[in-house]
Amino acid sequence: MSKQTSLVTREPFDRQKHVYRNDAFAELVKNAVRFFNGTPVHPLASPEKFHGTGVYMIYYTGRSKIYSRYSELNRLSYDFPIYVGKAVASGWRQSRTSHTVKKQTTELWSRINQHRNSIDITKNLSSDSFSCRFMIFEDASSDMIGTVEAALIKWKTPLWNSFLDGFGNHDPGKGRYEQAKSDWDVVHSGRPWADKCKGKTPSQKELLVGIEKFLSKHHSPF
Amino acid sequence: MSKQTSLVTREPFDRQKHVYRNDAFAELVKNAVRFFNGTPVHPLASPEKFHGTGVYMIYYTGRSKIYSRYSELNRLSYDFPIYVGKAVASGWRQSRTSHTVKKQTTELWSRINQHRNSIDITKNLSSDSFSCRFMIFEDASSDMIGTVEAALIKWKTPLWNSFLDGFGNHDPGKGRYEQAKSDWDVVHSGRPWADKCKGKTPSQKELLVGIEKFLSKHHSPF
Repeated sequence: MSKQTSLVTREPFDRQKHVYRNDAFAELVKNAVRFFNGTPVHPLASPEKFHGTGVYMIYYTGRSKIYSRYSELNRLSYDFPIYVGKAVASGWRQSRTSHTVKKQTTELWSRINQHRNSIDITKNLSSDSFSCRFMIFEDASSDMIGTVEAALIKWKTPLWNSFLDGFGNHDPGKGRYEQAKSDWDVVHSGRPWADKCKGKTPSQKELLVGIEKFLSKHHSPF
Repeated sequence: MSKQTSLVTREPFDRQKHVYRNDAFAELVKNAVRFFNGTPVHPLASPEKFHGTGVYMIYYTGRSKIYSRYSELNRLSYDFPIYVGKAVASGWRQSRTSHTVKKQTTELWSRINQHRNSIDITKNLSSDSFSCRFMIFEDASSDMIGTVEAALIKWKTPLWNSFLDGFGNHDPGKGRYEQAKSDWDVVHSGRPWADKCKGKTPSQKELLVGIEKFLSKHHSPF
């Protein structure tokens, strides 16, 4: 046996030695969410380009029958996003950004704009009916982006992150169109690449019934 | 204009109002990483099944020429993982787990075992040459999994998360084999689904040269 493997534990496995506990973390996420809830709300069609990565929430504020509940829910304050997402530095998973930090990229702004385009290309939605809120994370805090997004999705259960999934999808690309288009693309058809997808999907009718049930269950104002 | 849209900010856009700053977060991640570095190291072929989700690091401890530098680097302590990964609760992104919390799932153990299988099915690696360390996150702390994984990848720059990507991939599935197999699968052929992928890849020779350069650059002991 080499020196190497002799460092491996010979003790019996004890699960407790592997469990991490830290209540400060939950507090920190709450602090970030509290900050987020105090940031200004802007029209989705945000005119000004800005730098940075972070988390955003999109709110429906229009009058379409299917989403009318949101107008009720958000009447006094923006509490019920229809979608929560994040934009991180490209290549972060491969840790490439640690070597070539580009301060001046616009991931968050670009992602919000992709969403605006996805909405405006549909037959039954318009970006005029949406608002958004976003939170920029810089330097070490940027490691927190995924956590804050996950916490917000868990807490808010936004419709487009849960029952009606697929809004954030990208063109699957050549050779991958055998998969089904997303439920979101069934209800809001328009994205040209979604129409190339061949797989079987639920009907729009089924999904509309499902949306109504979902909103009654998760976003009841009472 | 409806009441609704009147809540949208009329002030000019001010980027500073959207920037979140909190140094406590970096400290908390360091605390988690410190805990992780104190957890026992086990052979990759871990015998006992355990419950939970979390983060793991895999270390190479064998004698193959291509990875021999790792034996040097990790001689005194396990400081240089070849791979860092995470296992989160299935469906967490759709926030489904918040409603049906299953305490007794074994995602982390399963993921480590998938990796063991990926290694043992190759022609040039064996799980006997690998060790691992893992950290279990429970309840609210589980939101921290992605952050700790990202921090570790940035900090450690593991070879299989960066230059030689693809170890953590899954079978792309029917209709998606037009893509290229991963660089990892080129160097460590064996997974049957990888051989079905048709796309163009770098040669094994090129990649071996690249691995040597990468290890010299990032994992130099001096």
